[in-house]
Amino acid sequence: MLVIMRDHASQSQIKHVVDLLEEVGAQAHLSGGEVKTIIGVIGDREIVYSLELQGLPGVEEVVRVLKPYKLVSRDFQPEDTVVHLGPHSSIGGGAVGVMAGPCSIESEEQMMTVARACRAAGATVLRGGAYKPRSSPYAFQGLGVEGLKMLRAAGDETGLPIVTEVLDVRDAETVAQYADLLQVGARNMQNFMMLDELGKMGKPVLLKRGLSATIEELLSAAEYVLKGGNRDLILCERGIRTFETYTRNTLDLAAVAALKMLTHLPVIVDPSHATGRRELVSVMSRAGIVSGADGLMVEVHPDPEHAKCDGPQSLRPEEFDELMDGVRPLLDLTGGHMGWE
Amino acid sequence: MLVIMRDHASQSQIKHVVDLLEEVGAQAHLSGGEVKTIIGVIGDREIVYSLELQGLPGVEEVVRVLKPYKLVSRDFQPEDTVVHLGPHSSIGGGAVGVMAGPCSIESEEQMMTVARACRAAGATVLRGGAYKPRSSPYAFQGLGVEGLKMLRAAGDETGLPIVTEVLDVRDAETVAQYADLLQVGARNMQNFMMLDELGKMGKPVLLKRGLSATIEELLSAAEYVLKGGNRDLILCERGIRTFETYTRNTLDLAAVAALKMLTHLPVIVDPSHATGRRELVSVMSRAGIVSGADGLMVEVHPDPEHAKCDGPQSLRPEEFDELMDGVRPLLDLTGGHMGWE
Amino acid sequence: MLVIMRDHASQSQIKHVVDLLEEVGAQAHLSGGEVKTIIGVIGDREIVYSLELQGLPGVEEVVRVLKPYKLVSRDFQPEDTVVHLGPHSSIGGGAVGVMAGPCSIESEEQMMTVARACRAAGATVLRGGAYKPRSSPYAFQGLGVEGLKMLRAAGDETGLPIVTEVLDVRDAETVAQYADLLQVGARNMQNFMMLDELGKMGKPVLLKRGLSATIEELLSAAEYVLKGGNRDLILCERGIRTFETYTRNTLDLAAVAALKMLTHLPVIVDPSHATGRRELVSVMSRAGIVSGADGLMVEVHPDPEHAKCDGPQSLRPEEFDELMDGVRPLLDLTGGHMGWE
Amino acid sequence: MLVIMRDHASQSQIKHVVDLLEEVGAQAHLSGGEVKTIIGVIGDREIVYSLELQGLPGVEEVVRVLKPYKLVSRDFQPEDTVVHLGPHSSIGGGAVGVMAGPCSIESEEQMMTVARACRAAGATVLRGGAYKPRSSPYAFQGLGVEGLKMLRAAGDETGLPIVTEVLDVRDAETVAQYADLLQVGARNMQNFMMLDELGKMGKPVLLKRGLSATIEELLSAAEYVLKGGNRDLILCERGIRTFETYTRNTLDLAAVAALKMLTHLPVIVDPSHATGRRELVSVMSRAGIVSGADGLMVEVHPDPEHAKCDGPQSLRPEEFDELMDGVRPLLDLTGGHMGWE
Repeated sequence: MLVIMRDHASQSQIKHVVDLLEEVGAQAHLSGGEVKTIIGVIGDREIVYSLELQGLPGVEEVVRVLKPYKLVSRDFQPEDTVVHLGPHSSIGGGAVGVMAGPCSIESEEQMMTVARACRAAGATVLRGGAYKPRSSPYAFQGLGVEGLKMLRAAGDETGLPIVTEVLDVRDAETVAQYADLLQVGARNMQNFMMLDELGKMGKPVLLKRGLSATIEELLSAAEYVLKGGNRDLILCERGIRTFETYTRNTLDLAAVAALKMLTHLPVIVDPSHATGRRELVSVMSRAGIVSGADGLMVEVHPDPEHAKCDGPQSLRPEEFDELMDGVRPLLDLTGGHMGWE
Repeated sequence: MLVIMRDHASQSQIKHVVDLLEEVGAQAHLSGGEVKTIIGVIGDREIVYSLELQGLPGVEEVVRVLKPYKLVSRDFQPEDTVVHLGPHSSIGGGAVGVMAGPCSIESEEQMMTVARACRAAGATVLRGGAYKPRSSPYAFQGLGVEGLKMLRAAGDETGLPIVTEVLDVRDAETVAQYADLLQVGARNMQNFMMLDELGKMGKPVLLKRGLSATIEELLSAAEYVLKGGNRDLILCERGIRTFETYTRNTLDLAAVAALKMLTHLPVIVDPSHATGRRELVSVMSRAGIVSGADGLMVEVHPDPEHAKCDGPQSLRPEEFDELMDGVRPLLDLTGGHMGWE
Repeated sequence: MLVIMRDHASQSQIKHVVDLLEEVGAQAHLSGGEVKTIIGVIGDREIVYSLELQGLPGVEEVVRVLKPYKLVSRDFQPEDTVVHLGPHSSIGGGAVGVMAGPCSIESEEQMMTVARACRAAGATVLRGGAYKPRSSPYAFQGLGVEGLKMLRAAGDETGLPIVTEVLDVRDAETVAQYADLLQVGARNMQNFMMLDELGKMGKPVLLKRGLSATIEELLSAAEYVLKGGNRDLILCERGIRTFETYTRNTLDLAAVAALKMLTHLPVIVDPSHATGRRELVSVMSRAGIVSGADGLMVEVHPDPEHAKCDGPQSLRPEEFDELMDGVRPLLDLTGGHMGWE
Repeated sequence: MLVIMRDHASQSQIKHVVDLLEEVGAQAHLSGGEVKTIIGVIGDREIVYSLELQGLPGVEEVVRVLKPYKLVSRDFQPEDTVVHLGPHSSIGGGAVGVMAGPCSIESEEQMMTVARACRAAGATVLRGGAYKPRSSPYAFQGLGVEGLKMLRAAGDETGLPIVTEVLDVRDAETVAQYADLLQVGARNMQNFMMLDELGKMGKPVLLKRGLSATIEELLSAAEYVLKGGNRDLILCERGIRTFETYTRNTLDLAAVAALKMLTHLPVIVDPSHATGRRELVSVMSRAGIVSGADGLMVEVHPDPEHAKCDGPQSLRPEEFDELMDGVRPLLDLTGGHMGWE
C-alpha cells in the first residue's frame, strides 16, 4: 500500500500516518521529494487495509496495490481450471462449452423441442430460466419448480447437463436438486450472501458479470465462491452498461482476454444479452471465441416472435446451427476443442 | 406501443406484425410515408408488451411508450407520501429526515457515542450497518444480530428510530424485529425476491438506487414493493457509476428533482457514498436539499481514522453539527421543515 | 511516481527499471516485501513521466502521483481568480454571474427581445450562438458573422457583455472582435490547438467540460489556456454522458464543489444542457449555486416552441425571471453577491 | 416522427401540437387510447425536425424515427465502399488494411526502422504522428512538419501509403501535401468545421470514433465528410470511455459488426488505443477481424521503453510479426484478403 501525501504536507501530518501504521505493526518507508512525500507500507494486508487513512489531514491518496482476491488468481494457480458437468460435458483448459436454450422455460413441448435442436446443433449444455429477474413486476416471472422439472426432463432426454438461474438464495437447494450448473445472474453478482451459500454447496456455479462491475469486482465476487470451498466456477461476460444504446449492453471482449490472463477460471461469453440483437449474436460468438473465451451462452427459441422474454435476441434453431458452423473452424486456430466427449 | 418498420419494409412484413397484434386482441393503426411505416398499437398493456416484435423481419424498432410502473407514479397518486417512523420522526410531504450514524456498528460504546452526537445535532433517524456488503470476502462483514441489538439500544436511549440494511432476504424477519426502517442497498436494488418479501412485510423500506440503475428502473423496483401492499417506501439517490473517478460515484441531483415530479414517494440523498470524500459531504447535503430531497443519509463516526469501513467519507460529530447548521436555513427557502415533532 | 512490480518480479526485471530511471537522472527508492517490490521515483517530473515503464517485463502498474497541471491549481494560487467582463460584470471571488440568452441567434428582433428580458430579470452576461455545433449536417448551423453583429448590438443596447462560442479556430479573431467572452464548447474541450490560440489572445475564455472529460482532464485543458498567458478563464460544468437517458446529460454538481477546492478559477453551471428539460432548469440552477458555483449559463428564448435549437430546454422570459427570484435568496447563505455593479 | 402525449393530455394541448405541425405543412395522424394519444408525423424531415415540440404542454416525448444521416447509410448505397490508397493498398469490400507504425514520429532513423519492419511483416499502410493531442500541455507534442517529412520519406522508401493525424484544421492543407490518408482523432470527431473542410478536400479520410460517441453520432459525423463530396472515408472503432479502468478504453466490437450492417463505409479497429495494454493488442486484433472489421490500426515501435508516447501499448516489431501471423489465417474464414496487390 502507498500513502501519497499532499504537496507540502507537514511533518506532524506525516508522523501521524506513520504512527497509525506502526500501531498495527506495519512498516512505513518514506520516500520524499521537495514537495511530496510518499509512504510505502509493508505489513499484513488485511490489517493494513483496514486502516482508513484516506481523508486524514495531509493525505492526498491511498493506493492499494494488492489485489482484493487470491484464490481466483493465476498467480495462485497457474493451470486452467476445468469444470466438468456430467460425464460428457466440460468447460475450460481448451474445452469449449456452448450453453444454449430459451430465455425462459414456457412449456414441456417448447423445452423439449429446443433441447433436441440444441443438441443436434452441437450444444454441450442446455439452458432455460425457471425464475426470471424482470425489471417490471408485471412481466412474466417464470414457471418456478414446474419449469425446473421440464428443464431436467429435457436435459435427461438429450443427455445435456442443464444450467439455470438461482434468483433467490432460499431456492438454492431446490434448484441444486435439478440443475447441474447454478447460474448467478448479473443483478446478483454482488449478492454476497448468495455467493457465500453457493460457495458451500457442491454444485458448479456460473457467475455473470454485473452490469457495472469492473473486472476486479468480478474476480472479488468469484473469490467469495472459491473461499467457501467450491472450485467449480465459470465466469461469464455478458456486456456492461454504457452510454451506447444501439446494443442492449456493450460487450467487453477485452475483458475476456484480460480475465484469461488474470485468472485460471473458465470464462464464457453471452452475446445474446450483450447485444440484445439477433443479427449480432453469431458474429459476436465468433469474436468471443477468438478473444479466448472457453464457451458461449446463447438464447435459442423455436418461435422467438412468441417468446415470453428476450425474443428479439433469441436465435431460431436453424440460426443456432449456423452459429455453431461458424464457431467450429475457429477452434483449429485457437487450439481449443468442443467440450463434449 | 409503436412499431417502427424499416425503410421500404414489405407489405407482407407489415401484415405479419399487424396479424400478430390482432391475434392478441390489439388494434394496429398504420401511419405510413413513402419510405417508412409506423404502427401505433392500442390494447392491453401487459398482453401487447409480452409480444416480442423486436427482431421480426422488417421491424426496425419497438418503442414502448407506457411506463413499466403504476402505483409509484404521481399520475396515480398526486399527493406526497409521508412515511412515519415512530412517534416523532417522519419523511416526505415537507418533512425532511436526516439519517445519520456509522457505516458499520462496531461496539456498544461507539454506537451510543454516535447516537447521542447525532441526536444532539438534530438527526431524525439513526443509521448503522450490522450486515455489510463488501466487495472483498476478506473485508469486515459486520457484527450481525449483536450489532442490531447495539443499534436498537442506541435508538431506544436517544429516541431515534433506526434504519439498517437487509443484506440477505433470509434475515429480513430478524432485522425487522429490531429496525424501524429496512434498507435495501444499491447492490440489491434489483434483488426482486427481496423486494417482493419486503413488499409483504409491514415495515417501512428505504430503497437505494443501484450503481447503474436508471430512474425508470428505480421506479420499477419501487413498484415491486408497493405492489406487495407496502406503501411506506423511501427512495435514495446515492450516486451512479460513471467514468469519473475523482468522486467515488457521480451524485445525480437532477434525478432527485426528476423523481420528485415522477413519483409521490419521498426521496433522500446519500452524499457520503455518492462522493466518498468527507470534504464534499456537507456541501452536497445542502445541494441535495435544494434539489428537492426529502432528507439525507450521512455517515458519522466518532473516530473516522479507526473506522472499520468508509472512514474517508465519514464525518466527525462536530462536522455533522456544521452540516446540520448549513441545512436548516435552506428549509425556509424550500418550504420544508425538519421531520421531527 | 511509483512503479509497482508484479508479484515475484525477478531481480533483473527490477534492476532494468532502476537502470532506466537512473539513465535519466532520477532516483529510485525500493521498498519491498516478500512478494512485492515498489519503486518510488524522485526526479524531474517531465523527464520521469516521459519514460514509458508501463508494459515493461515485471511491471504491474505505474502510478503517477503528480497532477498534470500547475498554473490552474489552488496550491499554485490560493486566492480566487476574478474575471471582469466590461465595466459592470464580473465572475469569481464571490461575484455570481448569470449568462442568459438563446441557444442560437435567429434574428435581430429575437435577440433584442431576449436581451432586454434577460437584463430586466438580472442577467449579467448575454449569450447567443452564431456558430452552432450540430450532430447532423442537416441541422441549422447558425447565422455566423451576421449573428455576431446582432448579438453585439443587443449587448450594446442593454449594457450586457456578450459570450459566444468559437467553433473554428480560424474564426477566433473574428469572434474576438465582437465578443467579450469566448466560449469553447464541450466538443472542443480537448481541441488543444484552439486552447493554445485562445491562450495567446487577450480575451476572457469560457471552457466547457467535455461530455466524457474527467475533472483532471478539464483542469489539464484549462492549463493550456493559462500556459499561453491568458489568466481570464472560467470553467463550466454542463453535464457528463452516462447511461441515464431521462436527462440529456448527468449534471455533476460534486465536480463543481471539487473544482472549487482544486482550482482558483471561477466555475459556472449550465443546467440547460445538463438536463435538457425546461422543468429542471430552475431547480438545478439553485442546486448549482449551493454547490459553490460562481455563476450560471441558462438558455432563454421568447418562443421556445419555434426556437431553431434546444427549444425543450429553453426558458421563457417569465420562467427565467422566476429562476432569478429563486437564486437571489441563496446568495445570502452562500456569502456571494450578483456579479454586477 | 412520433409525438407521445402525456397521460390524459387535454384536447387543446393535442390540438396545439397538431396546429404547429400543420403550420409547417406536415400531416399529423392521431392514434389514441383511453389515457394516451400518440401523434404520428409525416412530412419533410428537415422541417419537421426543426420544430421543437419536446417541452410543450402535454408532450411527454418526441421520438425521431428517421436517422440523422443518409449518404453513409447502406440503405442509400448497398455495396461496400472501397478506399484506395496509392497503387497497391486498399481497404473495404473484402480488402483488409493494416496500418502500423509508431504513436509519434521521433526521428528519421526510428521512422525508417519501423517502416521497414512493418512492411516486412505485411502492413499495408504506415502510420505515425507528427502533431500529437496530449492531455497535458507539458507532454511531447510532436515534430510537426519535420515529422511529416520523415514519415513521407519512410513511406516512399517502403512503398507504403501513409496516414497521419490532422490536429488543427489550419494544418489540413499542409498535412495533405504529405499524407495519403488524413486522420481525424477521437477528440476531433465532432469538430464539425474540420469535417467540413476535409469533406471538400480530395484526400481519403480516417475518422476515429469519439470517446463517448454513439454509433449514430459517428455516422452523423461521417455524413459531414460525405456531404462535402468526399466519398473516401474509413471509420475506426478505438474504444469508448466507460467505468472500467483495467483497459484504457472499452473496445466495442459489437459496434464494428453493427456499423458493417448500417453503413457501406470501411470500418477498422485500433486495439492499441482501445486496450492501452500491449499484451491485449494481438488477441483483440484477431477478434476485430472476426467481428467484420476491414482493417486494423496498430502501434509499433522499435523500442517501446524509450517511446515518447504510448509505449505501454506499442508492439515491438517481432510482436507485430506475430500479430500478422495470427490475423492471416482468419481471412480464409471471413472471406477477406489482405488489402495489398
